Amino acid sequence: MTELTGATLLGSRDLAGAATFRAVDPATGIELEPAFTEAGPAEVAEAAALAAAAFPLYRATTPEARAAFLDAIAANIEALGDALIARAARETGLPVARLTGERARTMGQLRLFASWVRAGGADEPRLDSPLPARTPLPRADLRLRHIGIGPVAVFGASNFPLAFSVAGGDTASALAAGCPVIVKGHPAHPGTSELVGRAIRAAVREAGLPEGVFSLLTGTAHELGGALVADPRVKAVGFTGSRAGGLALCRIAANRPEPIPVFAEMSSINPVFLLPAALEARAEALATGFVGSLTMGAGQFCTNPGLVIALSGAALDRFIASAATAVAAAPAATMLTPGIAGAYAKGVAALEGSADVTEVAHGAEGGANACRPALFVTEAAAFLREPVLSHEVFGASSVVIRCANADEMRAVAGGLEGQLTATLHLDPADHLLAAALLPVLEDKAGRILANGWPTGVEVCHAMVHGGPFPATSDPRSTSVGTLAIRRFLRPVCYQDLPEALLPAVLRTKNPLGLPRLVDGTPVRTGEAQ
Amino acid sequence: MTELTGATLLGSRDLAGAATFRAVDPATGIELEPAFTEAGPAEVAEAAALAAAAFPLYRATTPEARAAFLDAIAANIEALGDALIARAARETGLPVARLTGERARTMGQLRLFASWVRAGGADEPRLDSPLPARTPLPRADLRLRHIGIGPVAVFGASNFPLAFSVAGGDTASALAAGCPVIVKGHPAHPGTSELVGRAIRAAVREAGLPEGVFSLLTGTAHELGGALVADPRVKAVGFTGSRAGGLALCRIAANRPEPIPVFAEMSSINPVFLLPAALEARAEALATGFVGSLTMGAGQFCTNPGLVIALSGAALDRFIASAATAVAAAPAATMLTPGIAGAYAKGVAALEGSADVTEVAHGAEGGANACRPALFVTEAAAFLREPVLSHEVFGASSVVIRCANADEMRAVAGGLEGQLTATLHLDPADHLLAAALLPVLEDKAGRILANGWPTGVEVCHAMVHGGPFPATSDPRSTSVGTLAIRRFLRPVCYQDLPEALLPAVLRTKNPLGLPRLVDGTPVRTGEAQ
Repeated sequence: MTELTGATLLGSRDLAGAATFRAVDPATGIELEPAFTEAGPAEVAEAAALAAAAFPLYRATTPEARAAFLDAIAANIEALGDALIARAARETGLPVARLTGERARTMGQLRLFASWVRAGGADEPRLDSPLPARTPLPRADLRLRHIGIGPVAVFGASNFPLAFSVAGGDTASALAAGCPVIVKGHPAHPGTSELVGRAIRAAVREAGLPEGVFSLLTGTAHELGGALVADPRVKAVGFTGSRAGGLALCRIAANRPEPIPVFAEMSSINPVFLLPAALEARAEALATGFVGSLTMGAGQFCTNPGLVIALSGAALDRFIASAATAVAAAPAATMLTPGIAGAYAKGVAALEGSADVTEVAHGAEGGANACRPALFVTEAAAFLREPVLSHEVFGASSVVIRCANADEMRAVAGGLEGQLTATLHLDPADHLLAAALLPVLEDKAGRILANGWPTGVEVCHAMVHGGPFPATSDPRSTSVGTLAIRRFLRPVCYQDLPEALLPAVLRTKNPLGLPRLVDGTPVRTGEAQ
Repeated sequence: MTELTGATLLGSRDLAGAATFRAVDPATGIELEPAFTEAGPAEVAEAAALAAAAFPLYRATTPEARAAFLDAIAANIEALGDALIARAARETGLPVARLTGERARTMGQLRLFASWVRAGGADEPRLDSPLPARTPLPRADLRLRHIGIGPVAVFGASNFPLAFSVAGGDTASALAAGCPVIVKGHPAHPGTSELVGRAIRAAVREAGLPEGVFSLLTGTAHELGGALVADPRVKAVGFTGSRAGGLALCRIAANRPEPIPVFAEMSSINPVFLLPAALEARAEALATGFVGSLTMGAGQFCTNPGLVIALSGAALDRFIASAATAVAAAPAATMLTPGIAGAYAKGVAALEGSADVTEVAHGAEGGANACRPALFVTEAAAFLREPVLSHEVFGASSVVIRCANADEMRAVAGGLEGQLTATLHLDPADHLLAAALLPVLEDKAGRILANGWPTGVEVCHAMVHGGPFPATSDPRSTSVGTLAIRRFLRPVCYQDLPEALLPAVLRTKNPLGLPRLVDGTPVRTGEAQ
């Protein structure tokens, strides 16, 4: 196993600072070795200077070179072997099987972005032919490609120590776009972060890329992240975390002399609508599936089903009874950090203290920092009246909303804030009601599921892990899947440039063989243009 | 001719307010009839409520319906005939020939967006096939399309009373995206705005669309625009104007409870590099072309060439001498508004007052609100030292920068702020120097031209009218060309939705026949999938 040093990684340089912090094993509360450096403004400035210096060279790499680099990062992470999983398990309390799956997903998304870059997904070239004989004015020769926006700051998330952290989705899409990345590692898993950071650094070195393509800043202070977002050399930000944290970064970015985009994925309660025919047909099976999704990973998913909406009646009573039994039987699970466990307990206590809400079940007491699953029931009128009922409680807590009729169900849908997901359980007899709900849900959520559960986010071309505010700070984007690369790209147009000076991807003979949009028509690899 | 009423257009309702303002003929300073309503917060709220009510219906229209609506707007503008041109000429001081060309461009861009929507450019559908046998977990059926983001606020620009105003590029792309539009008309051409606004309103009615798809707010107060951007029902903003104005709107948008994107096109001085061989070969011809581009339309273009960079020497002296002669002979032209004429005079006076700058020519004195073209020369060292020399002077003023050598030329390029355009005049012998400048210019500008002039922006697929800050507030976008539609779209993913509930564009049999990305591969119209 690579020895952990606790250093902040500034390009190829290790920096060991005087002030330090340690990871905590959430299952025991015990501090873990080694001590990690508290990076500060000087380290932000150094990482940003290295990234700015690396940017012109890195963005000029060919699609193939960038893809090979992403593949090498995946291979280097794989080569870390069980040591990575073991350290991540100690730092996060997450089970080994879950972390093993998450590692596979992390490598999978690096490789998917590699294949997407090879397929021209970063460049998206467009060519419009000159029209020299057009009147009253001829048309010039116009060609467009996309290039990286500049150095990107990525904030590691606590709840996916691999897939949304140092080599997670934001890092993969920014590197795929041709942008150097400065990661602000999440302080809950600094050892995991260092291992992955060193794997990326090794890939940078092996590929002969400039060292500033990647840096990893360690630290616990909010000021560290603030300084990173404020640095004039940073041109975009990717963040997954709390609403307060995301909004704070958005404000810093918007108030810079040069404002920059922040892609913050923040808060979602992921409503699940149980439509009448489906509920009648399989209330108990739905309850089992629901509690499985709710309690998986101690409910620490952005897509955790925090709200269930259904019509009052015997079928819903059966669902609630079955779900209550399953919740009561659910084991307590260690949460990621003492802070998250504390916030969960506080959120559950707020619901327990609400006169509008009935607690129908809670799980067993657990050890230190454990999540005790909880299930509540309320009425639609109360939900529409009380904003506290739509606040995210990060963890395995959910509220069932009884609706008197379909109109109330639609009103609940219409009263939702923006969401990452919205789910419909439905049978053919429910299609009419589903068709009435769908337009409302499309305006509220980035992903709409039928007869499934929102936890589990496929990494592919058609995925959207995003949605209207406050699910994210910019609904025009996704943090998962190949569409995410557009966050970090900007278009550049070349007018009448001599062939010899054009970027390869735009040359007439298409030497890279990428698909292009020619006079508005898609032309694929290898086709005559 | 349609009779002008001076009303604010709130959906299908005319509102005539108590407080009014009038357009001014900039050539004479005389106020024009009729009086126009000063809309206020109540009108913002009404327009926003209408737009929010119209949004679900409007965004659900088929691509064909939306395209036909855009075509109808173009036809209705055409049907206004010479009355539109005559009113625009009086309100702006722009020549009839220029306005006639601008009208053609305005109709052309509406029709281009219509064709792009018909071609699937709004939906950009993506389908990933289910993998039921995949281990350890099957893959769901995932399908993605784009939908409108919501009501869009568009700020009309003063300098393109047709092409960047009420039915300009931002309006066309937002309507194409399925977003209702609320235009805040520019107070310098309210009559032109009303004529075009009524043409759009008629198209809304003829298409049977909800009235809130379009409203036009008239008024002169900054508070009107601020209230519009702050309204919670508005989901994005398009703006073309000053840096101060654009940044003010960005701040308002960023500090809303729900931040929204602002696409502000603000400030650019459009550097032109005259490389040595080209300059040596045709200094005089370049000077003629340059002064033509500089003085066209009194220099009131975002892409006006405000900076010329070349190596010191006899060839540059010839260029300067020829350009000085042409500038001295250039007639004064009426500027759009007294405010713009005053700002131009102030900007030129600041350059005249700078010890670092020599005025080599100015044009003849003109009448009221005339732009007197001006040409200045300075040294690279002074340009790099004095920020005032890189401030935009909106109008026909330009500064020639003498560089001692190629390194200084590169330093000037590197010291530029973000630009809409950067131009290279070059011969084959200049390719080596051009290749060294290009990577710097790509990071500074949205469009790079060779052997042309930056004024004149083609409306097509490969155009970028955008660029890094302060040229725009978001370099990941363009305000001209079909790529602009992405500003106002957001992706939505459908997971395992029954075929009957899927949007038509995502159904398996592809009933709309649009091109789609299937498992990462582009599949064109009519092809088997």
